[in-house]
Amino acid sequence: MSLDQIPRSAYTADHEAFRQTVRRFLQDEIEPNGAKWAEDGIVPKSVWPKAGALGMLCPTVPEEYGGLGLDFGYNAIVDEESAYNGRVATGFSLQSDIVVNYLVSYGSEEQKRTWLPKLVSGEVVTAIAMTEPGTGSDLQGMRTTAKKDGNHYVLNGSKTYITNGQNADLILVCCKTDTAIEPAWKGVSILLVEATREGFRRGRNLDKIGQDEADTSELFFDDVRVPITNCLGEEGKGFIYLMSELPQERLSIAVSAQASAQRAFDDTVAFTRERKAFGKPILDFQNTRFTLADLKTKLQVGWAHLDWALARHLRKELTPEEGAAAKLWHTELQWEVMDKCLQLHGGAGYMNEYAIARAWRGARVTRIFGGTNEIMKELIGRKL
Amino acid sequence: MSLDQIPRSAYTADHEAFRQTVRRFLQDEIEPNGAKWAEDGIVPKSVWPKAGALGMLCPTVPEEYGGLGLDFGYNAIVDEESAYNGRVATGFSLQSDIVVNYLVSYGSEEQKRTWLPKLVSGEVVTAIAMTEPGTGSDLQGMRTTAKKDGNHYVLNGSKTYITNGQNADLILVCCKTDTAIEPAWKGVSILLVEATREGFRRGRNLDKIGQDEADTSELFFDDVRVPITNCLGEEGKGFIYLMSELPQERLSIAVSAQASAQRAFDDTVAFTRERKAFGKPILDFQNTRFTLADLKTKLQVGWAHLDWALARHLRKELTPEEGAAAKLWHTELQWEVMDKCLQLHGGAGYMNEYAIARAWRGARVTRIFGGTNEIMKELIGRKL
Amino acid sequence: MSLDQIPRSAYTADHEAFRQTVRRFLQDEIEPNGAKWAEDGIVPKSVWPKAGALGMLCPTVPEEYGGLGLDFGYNAIVDEESAYNGRVATGFSLQSDIVVNYLVSYGSEEQKRTWLPKLVSGEVVTAIAMTEPGTGSDLQGMRTTAKKDGNHYVLNGSKTYITNGQNADLILVCCKTDTAIEPAWKGVSILLVEATREGFRRGRNLDKIGQDEADTSELFFDDVRVPITNCLGEEGKGFIYLMSELPQERLSIAVSAQASAQRAFDDTVAFTRERKAFGKPILDFQNTRFTLADLKTKLQVGWAHLDWALARHLRKELTPEEGAAAKLWHTELQWEVMDKCLQLHGGAGYMNEYAIARAWRGARVTRIFGGTNEIMKELIGRKL
Amino acid sequence: MSLDQIPRSAYTADHEAFRQTVRRFLQDEIEPNGAKWAEDGIVPKSVWPKAGALGMLCPTVPEEYGGLGLDFGYNAIVDEESAYNGRVATGFSLQSDIVVNYLVSYGSEEQKRTWLPKLVSGEVVTAIAMTEPGTGSDLQGMRTTAKKDGNHYVLNGSKTYITNGQNADLILVCCKTDTAIEPAWKGVSILLVEATREGFRRGRNLDKIGQDEADTSELFFDDVRVPITNCLGEEGKGFIYLMSELPQERLSIAVSAQASAQRAFDDTVAFTRERKAFGKPILDFQNTRFTLADLKTKLQVGWAHLDWALARHLRKELTPEEGAAAKLWHTELQWEVMDKCLQLHGGAGYMNEYAIARAWRGARVTRIFGGTNEIMKELIGRKL
Ligand SMILES: Cc1cc2nc3c(=O)[nH]c(=O)nc-3n(C[C@H](O)[C@H](O)[C@H](O)COP(=O)(O)OP(=O)(O)OC[C@H]3O[C@@H](n4cnc5c(N)ncnc54)[C@H](O)[C@@H]3O)c2cc1C
Ligand SMILES: Cc1cc2nc3c(=O)[nH]c(=O)nc-3n(C[C@H](O)[C@H](O)[C@H](O)COP(=O)(O)OP(=O)(O)OC[C@H]3O[C@@H](n4cnc5c(N)ncnc54)[C@H](O)[C@@H]3O)c2cc1C
Ligand SMILES: Cc1cc2nc3c(=O)[nH]c(=O)nc-3n(C[C@H](O)[C@H](O)[C@H](O)COP(=O)(O)OP(=O)(O)OC[C@H]3O[C@@H](n4cnc5c(N)ncnc54)[C@H](O)[C@@H]3O)c2cc1C
Ligand SMILES: Cc1cc2nc3c(=O)[nH]c(=O)nc-3n(C[C@H](O)[C@H](O)[C@H](O)COP(=O)(O)OP(=O)(O)OC[C@H]3O[C@@H](n4cnc5c(N)ncnc54)[C@H](O)[C@@H]3O)c2cc1C
Repeated sequence: MSLDQIPRSAYTADHEAFRQTVRRFLQDEIEPNGAKWAEDGIVPKSVWPKAGALGMLCPTVPEEYGGLGLDFGYNAIVDEESAYNGRVATGFSLQSDIVVNYLVSYGSEEQKRTWLPKLVSGEVVTAIAMTEPGTGSDLQGMRTTAKKDGNHYVLNGSKTYITNGQNADLILVCCKTDTAIEPAWKGVSILLVEATREGFRRGRNLDKIGQDEADTSELFFDDVRVPITNCLGEEGKGFIYLMSELPQERLSIAVSAQASAQRAFDDTVAFTRERKAFGKPILDFQNTRFTLADLKTKLQVGWAHLDWALARHLRKELTPEEGAAAKLWHTELQWEVMDKCLQLHGGAGYMNEYAIARAWRGARVTRIFGGTNEIMKELIGRKL
Repeated sequence: MSLDQIPRSAYTADHEAFRQTVRRFLQDEIEPNGAKWAEDGIVPKSVWPKAGALGMLCPTVPEEYGGLGLDFGYNAIVDEESAYNGRVATGFSLQSDIVVNYLVSYGSEEQKRTWLPKLVSGEVVTAIAMTEPGTGSDLQGMRTTAKKDGNHYVLNGSKTYITNGQNADLILVCCKTDTAIEPAWKGVSILLVEATREGFRRGRNLDKIGQDEADTSELFFDDVRVPITNCLGEEGKGFIYLMSELPQERLSIAVSAQASAQRAFDDTVAFTRERKAFGKPILDFQNTRFTLADLKTKLQVGWAHLDWALARHLRKELTPEEGAAAKLWHTELQWEVMDKCLQLHGGAGYMNEYAIARAWRGARVTRIFGGTNEIMKELIGRKL
Repeated sequence: MSLDQIPRSAYTADHEAFRQTVRRFLQDEIEPNGAKWAEDGIVPKSVWPKAGALGMLCPTVPEEYGGLGLDFGYNAIVDEESAYNGRVATGFSLQSDIVVNYLVSYGSEEQKRTWLPKLVSGEVVTAIAMTEPGTGSDLQGMRTTAKKDGNHYVLNGSKTYITNGQNADLILVCCKTDTAIEPAWKGVSILLVEATREGFRRGRNLDKIGQDEADTSELFFDDVRVPITNCLGEEGKGFIYLMSELPQERLSIAVSAQASAQRAFDDTVAFTRERKAFGKPILDFQNTRFTLADLKTKLQVGWAHLDWALARHLRKELTPEEGAAAKLWHTELQWEVMDKCLQLHGGAGYMNEYAIARAWRGARVTRIFGGTNEIMKELIGRKL
Repeated sequence: MSLDQIPRSAYTADHEAFRQTVRRFLQDEIEPNGAKWAEDGIVPKSVWPKAGALGMLCPTVPEEYGGLGLDFGYNAIVDEESAYNGRVATGFSLQSDIVVNYLVSYGSEEQKRTWLPKLVSGEVVTAIAMTEPGTGSDLQGMRTTAKKDGNHYVLNGSKTYITNGQNADLILVCCKTDTAIEPAWKGVSILLVEATREGFRRGRNLDKIGQDEADTSELFFDDVRVPITNCLGEEGKGFIYLMSELPQERLSIAVSAQASAQRAFDDTVAFTRERKAFGKPILDFQNTRFTLADLKTKLQVGWAHLDWALARHLRKELTPEEGAAAKLWHTELQWEVMDKCLQLHGGAGYMNEYAIARAWRGARVTRIFGGTNEIMKELIGRKL
C-alpha cells in the first residue's frame, strides 16, 4: 500500500509528483537512520539541508525570500508521507507548517531577509516556545517576561516541552512585554531569540513516551538581552498572531494523524493476513474483520474530510473552529486506529521492534499538543 | 438554522433552487399533517401526486418515460430536506432512490412505459419485498417461490417489514424461481406484482418503535398468478440486480441520516440555549458545550464525507464497499447525535411531543434496515 | 433463565422465598394484562390492593403502622422481579422505595397513622411532585409556592412528569414556603396534598417514548388550601429531606436497571440461538458471541456491585455519592445492554410486539429521571 | 490516599496486617531502586530473597514445603500493593500466583521438595514458557517438541515473550511430547527445565512499550536433555493443567489492574487539584470533574466485583468464565482509567518522569497477556 492509492481530491498532478520526491527522500535518508536517531533522541542537523535542497522545507515561502512560493498542499504532502513513513517526528513540519508563517506574515523586511532563506535551505532550525512549566493551555498565564532596557529587551523565564529545543538555532519566544495590562493577552509579544545569545540555556532533552527521535526540551532564559528589532511584528500583538496561525498548525496535525493512522491500518491488514492462529489467518476471525472494516470506514471518512479541509484552507476559508475540529477529530481517529491495531498484533504489539508499537507511542501526544483536545472542544463550544 | 447554511460542494445552483421547492412543499403539505399521519401510522396516498407534480418523485427517470432526467443529487436534496424537516418516513425515498432504479436499469420497454410515468407522477406507490419472517440479512435463504405454470408464475410465500406495504400498488417481489440450483443465489428473481392480483393479501401495518407515519407491513402471497412478462430483467438474475442497486440505497440512507442528525443538533443547541438550570442556560455547562462541540465536529466531518460520496456516486465511482461504509458511518453518527441530544433535553426528551423524541425513535431503525450495520462490516471486511 | 440462577450474596433464604411470591403475582396478575395497560397508558388501581395483600407494597413500614417491618432487601426483590418480568413501570416502586420513606422518617404520628396502613395495603396510591415545567435538575429553582393563610397553606403552581400522576390519591408536593430566604433551599417544604382538594387538577397523561403502562402527568395547583398539619416534618426542611432519601431512590433505580438488563440479555441469547442466517444460528457469528460475552461480563460485574451496594445500604453505610454512582453505572449498563441486544434482533428489534423493543424504549428514561446522569456526575465530582 | 481506605470485604485483619508489611517493603526496597531497574530492564535477583524473607513469595505453599500455607488473599495483597506502588512488574506475581501452583498441584513429591522451598525463599526464580514466535493464543499450535530418548526428553524449539526470562533459574516449558496425536492438545506436556542445562540459551531481553523493569525474553532450546522425572504430572496432560490454572492467573491480573487504576486515579485527582489553568485548578472544570466522577464510579464498581471474585475464588467457586470475565473487565477498566488520567495531565502525561506515563505504558500489556481480551470473549462466548 501507499498513500497515492487513496482517491483524493485536494491535490494536483504537481503535488503528486512532489510526493514521489518526498517519498524517495524518506526512504533513502530517513528510514535507514531512524532507529539510530530514535535511540539518540534527536535527528542530526545535517539532515535538514538535504531536505531543504529538495524543496521539502517551508515550500510556501515566497520566491523573493529564497522559497518556492507554493501552496500549503506541498506542506501537507510532506506531512502525509513522513507520517506514513512512520518516522513522524523530524521537526520539519514544525518549521514548515508553523514557525515560518510567523515570519512570513509578521516579520519585518529585515527579519525575512535574514531568516527565511535559511529556514528554506535547512541551514537554520527553529522552534517556537509558548509552553512553560506552569502553563500550557492557558497562554495568557505565561510568566516569561521581556523588560525593555534601552534598545534591548531583557528576557527572563523558562519554557518546556519545546520541539526542536536541542537543535534550534532560532527560537520564537512568547513572553510578556507588559505584565500589568488588562486584558492580559495584550501584554504578549513574540521575540526572535538566537540560540547564541548569552543567558540562553537548553535544559534536558526530555524523556518521552514516544516520538523518540524528536528532541523536546526545556529552555531557560536568564537576563537574555535581545535587540528591540527582534520583536516579531508589533509589541503586544503576540497573542493575536498566535491565534491567527493556529488553524494551520491544527490542520497540519490533522494531516499527519490521518496518514499515520492509515499506515497503522495498512500494516495491520498485512500482519493479520500473515499471522495465523487456530489454523487460519487472524484476519479471518470475524472480530478482526469487523474491527478493521470499522477502521477502514473511518479512514475513508477521514480522507474525505481532510481533502475538504485542505481545499478550504487553500481558499483561505477554513475557520478556526473548523481547524480545531479537524485537529480534534483526526487525532481521536488516529488514536482509535493505533490502539485497535496494536491489539490485533497480540504480544508483538507491545514490542518496540514492531512499527505499530512505536507509532502507537508516538500517536499519544497528538491529543495533547497543538492545544489539547479539551481546548479544541472549548473553542468549538464557545461558538455554538 | 437550515441546511443551506452548511458549506457544501456536491450541489449546483439548480440543486439548491430545487431545495427551496422541496422545503416549501414539506412546510405546506407535510408538516401540518405529520402528527395526524403519525397517529394513523400511514401517509395518505393523496399526498403522492402533489409531490410528483413538483418533480420530487423519481427525478432521475429519463424524459422519455415521463421523468426529468436529472441526477441523483436531486434525490439527495429531497432526502436531506425531508430528514431535516423531521417527518422522515414518507416512503418517497424508497420509490425514488431504490425501486425506480430496478425498472430503469432492468425493466423491459413495456414495463418502463407502463410504470415509470406513474412512479414519477405519484399515481402509483411501490414497494420492494425482500425480507421474510425467516430471513433478512441472508437473502439467499428466502423461501418465497415462483413456480412456472404455462406463461405464468405461481407465487407463494410471505414477506415482512415491507415499507409502503399498505399503500403499495406495485410490489417488486424477490423470490426463488429455482430452489434447487447451486449456488442458491442463482435461483433468485424479481417479479412485478400488482396489488390487485388475486391471492395477494396485506397483513398488519406493523407497530414500530418509530417512523410512526411509515406503513410497514407483512405481505402474503397465496398462489398468486403473475404473467411471465412481469419478471424483471432475466430470470435468475435477481440477486445480481439487488447487489447492483444497493450502493445507491445505502447512500440514500446515509444522506437522510446525516440530515436528521443535523436537525437534532440544531434543535438541541436552541433548546439548551433557552432552557435554564442553576441560574444559567444548560448550554453554559461545560459538559453540554463539550458534548455539542464534539457532535458539531462529527457533523462537519460527515458533510464533507457525504459530499465526497455524492460526487463519487454521480461520477459512478462509488464502490459497493464505499457505499456500505457510508451507510455504516452516517447511521452510527446519527444515533450518537440523537441519543446525546435527547439526553440534553432532560425529561422533555422522553416525551413524544418533543421532536427529539420522535427523531430518536425514528433513527433507531437505520442501523438495521438497508442491510444491518453488521452486514456492512461483513461486506467491507471481505474486501480487505 | 430466571434471576435466582445468579450467584448473589445480598439475600437471605427469606428474601428468596418472597421472590417466588412476587414472581407468581407478576405472572398471574401483571403479565396477562400488561399489553392492555400499556395501550391504556395506565395500570388500574384495582391491582394495588392485590399487591398489598401479598406484602409487596412498602415492606419496610413498621408493624405498628400496618407494615411488615422488613428490610429494603424485600423492596429490591420486588424491583428485580418486576424489572425482569418486563412490565417495569407499575409505580409500585415509587411508593415502596421512595414516597413511603418520607412518611416513615419525617411524618407526624397522625400522618403516619392516617397514611401508612393504606400505602401498605394499596388502598392509597401516592406520588411525589418535585419537577416543574421550568425546573427539574435544579430543585431550588422551583416556583410552586405555599403561602400561609391562617392554619392553611395556599398552594399555587404546576408540576410535570409526575409518576402515578393520574392514579395518585395523595401527593407529596415540594414547594416554596419561603421565596425570599437565602440560600434558596431553606425555603423548600413538602406538603401532603390529597387529590380530593379543591383547586387541584390533573393534566394530561403524557405520551412517552416508553414505560407505556406508567401514568406520568402534569399536575396543577390553583389556590389549593392545605392544612398546616399536612406539612411533612418541619417547614423549610424539605430540601434536606429530599437529599436524605435520594440514595435509596437511586439504589432502587439501579436494582431495576440491572434486572431489566439481565432480562434483555437472557432473551437475546435465546433469540440468537434460535434465529438463523447463512446456515447457522446468529449466536454462532463471532461478532454476536463477542458482543454477548462482553455484556455477560458487565452483568457479572453489575450483580457483584449491586450486592455490595445493597449490603451497604442495609447496614446504612451507603453514601450519597455511592448511591449516585450506582444509579449512574447501572443505568448506563442497562442502556448499553438494551441497545446492543435490540441490534442483535435485526428488524424484529424495531417492532413493538417484541419484548426487547418495549424494554429498550422503557429503559431510555433511567438515565434521566431520579436525577440525570449528568447530575450524578456532578454530585460525585463535587466530593473528589 | 492508600488502598486501605477503600471499603473492602475480601480481607481479614490478618490480610490487612500483611498489607502493611508489603507496603513497607515496597517503600524501602523497591521504590528507591525502581528507576534504576527500569533503566536496566531487569530487577536484580538479590531482591527476591528479601521478599521471600517477609513471606511475600508464594504464600500459599503448604508449610511442609517451606511455605506459610496461607490463602490466595495474601497473594492478592501483594499484587494490589505492588500495582498501587506503581513498579508493577517485579515478576513476583508470576512466581507466586501462577508458576508455583503447577508444582503444588501437579508436581511429584520430589519436585515439590526440591523446588517449593526455594520458590518461597526467593532463592530460585521461575518462568513459564508457553508462547512461541509462531503461536500465542493458540497453544495447541506450539512447535516446541520433546522427544523421548531413554530416560530423557530431548527438547527443541524456541519461546518468546517470557516473563522472568533473563532471571529464571527454573523454567516450566510447555511442549509437545506427541506431535501426531489427535486432538492436538493431548500431546502437550510441561517439563521442568533448569537454566543450567546444556543447549538452553536466553535470547534478547526484549525492548517493550512498558513494564521497563520486567525482563521479558526469548528462550532457545537446542537438543536440551531433560530427565523424564522432570515432566510435570503426567505426560500429555499439560494442556489440562494449563487450563486448570488459568482462572487464578486471570484473577491475579485483574487484581493488579484494578489497583494500578486506582493509583492513576488518585494521582490524577491530586494533580488536577494542584495544577491550575485559567485561574483555577484543572479539577474545577466540569469536564475534569465529570471524567473523574465517571472513573471513580467505575472503580467503586470494580472493587465490589473484585471482592466478589476473590471471595468466590477462595471458596473455589470461581468458574473459568468468571475468571476470564474478571481479567477482561478489570484490564479494560485499567486502560480507560490510564488513558483518561494521562490526558488530564496535559503535556506532563507524555513525559516518562511522571508516574502516569510509566503506568500508562505498563498497562497496555494487560489486555494482551494472560490470554488476549479477544480470547477472553471467545471463552465466555462459547459457554453462552
Ligand atoms: C511532545 C510535545 C511537544 C510539544 N511541543 C511544543 C512546542 O514546540 N512549543 C510549545 O510551546 N509547546 C509545546 N508543547 C506543549 C503543549 O502545547 C502543551 O503541553 C499543551 O498545550 C497542554 O498544556 P499543558 O501541558 O500545560 O497542560 P495543561 O494546560 O496544564 O492542561 C492539563 C489538563 O487540563 C485540561 N484543561 C486545561 N484547560 C481546560 C479547560 N478550560 N477546560 C477543560 N479542561 C482543561 C487539559 O486539556 C489537560 O487535560 C509540546 C508538548 C509535547 C508533549
Ligand atoms: C422499518 C423497517 C423497514 C423495512 N423495510 C423493508 C423493505 O421495504 N423491504 C425489505 O425487503 N425489507 C425491509 N426491512 C427489513 C430489513 O431490511 C431487515 O430487517 C434487515 O435486513 C435485517 O434482517 P433481519 O431482520 O432478518 O435480521 P437477521 O438477518 O435475522 O439478523 C439478526 C441479527 O444478526 C446479525 N447478523 C446477521 N448475519 C450476520 C453475520 N453474517 N455476521 C454477524 N452478524 C450477523 C444482524 O446484523 C442482526 O443483528 C425493513 C425493516 C424495518 C425495521
Ligand atoms: C418518565 C418520567 C417520570 C418522572 N417521574 C417524576 C416524579 O415522579 N416526580 C418528579 O418530581 N419528577 C419526575 N420526573 C422528572 C425527572 O426527575 C426530571 O426530568 C429530571 O430530574 C431532569 O430534570 P429536567 O427534565 O428539568 O431537565 P433539566 O434539569 O432541564 O436538564 C436538561 C439537561 O441539562 C443537564 N443539566 C442540568 N444541570 C446540569 C449541570 N449542572 N451540569 C451539566 N448538565 C446539567 C441535564 O442533565 C439534562 O441533560 C420524571 C421524568 C420522567 C421522564
Ligand atoms: C510483556 C509480556 C509478557 C508475557 N509473558 C509471558 C510468559 O511469561 N509466558 C508466556 O508463555 N507468554 C507470555 N506472554 C505472551 C502472551 O501470553 C501472548 O502474547 C498472548 O497470549 C497473545 O499471543 P500472541 O502474541 O501470539 O498473539 P496472537 O495469538 O498471534 O494474536 C494476534 C491477535 O489475534 C487475536 N486472536 C487470536 N485468536 C483469535 C480468535 N480465535 N478470535 C479472534 N481474535 C483472535 C488476538 O486477540 C490478537 O489480537 C507475554 C507477553 C507479553 C507482551
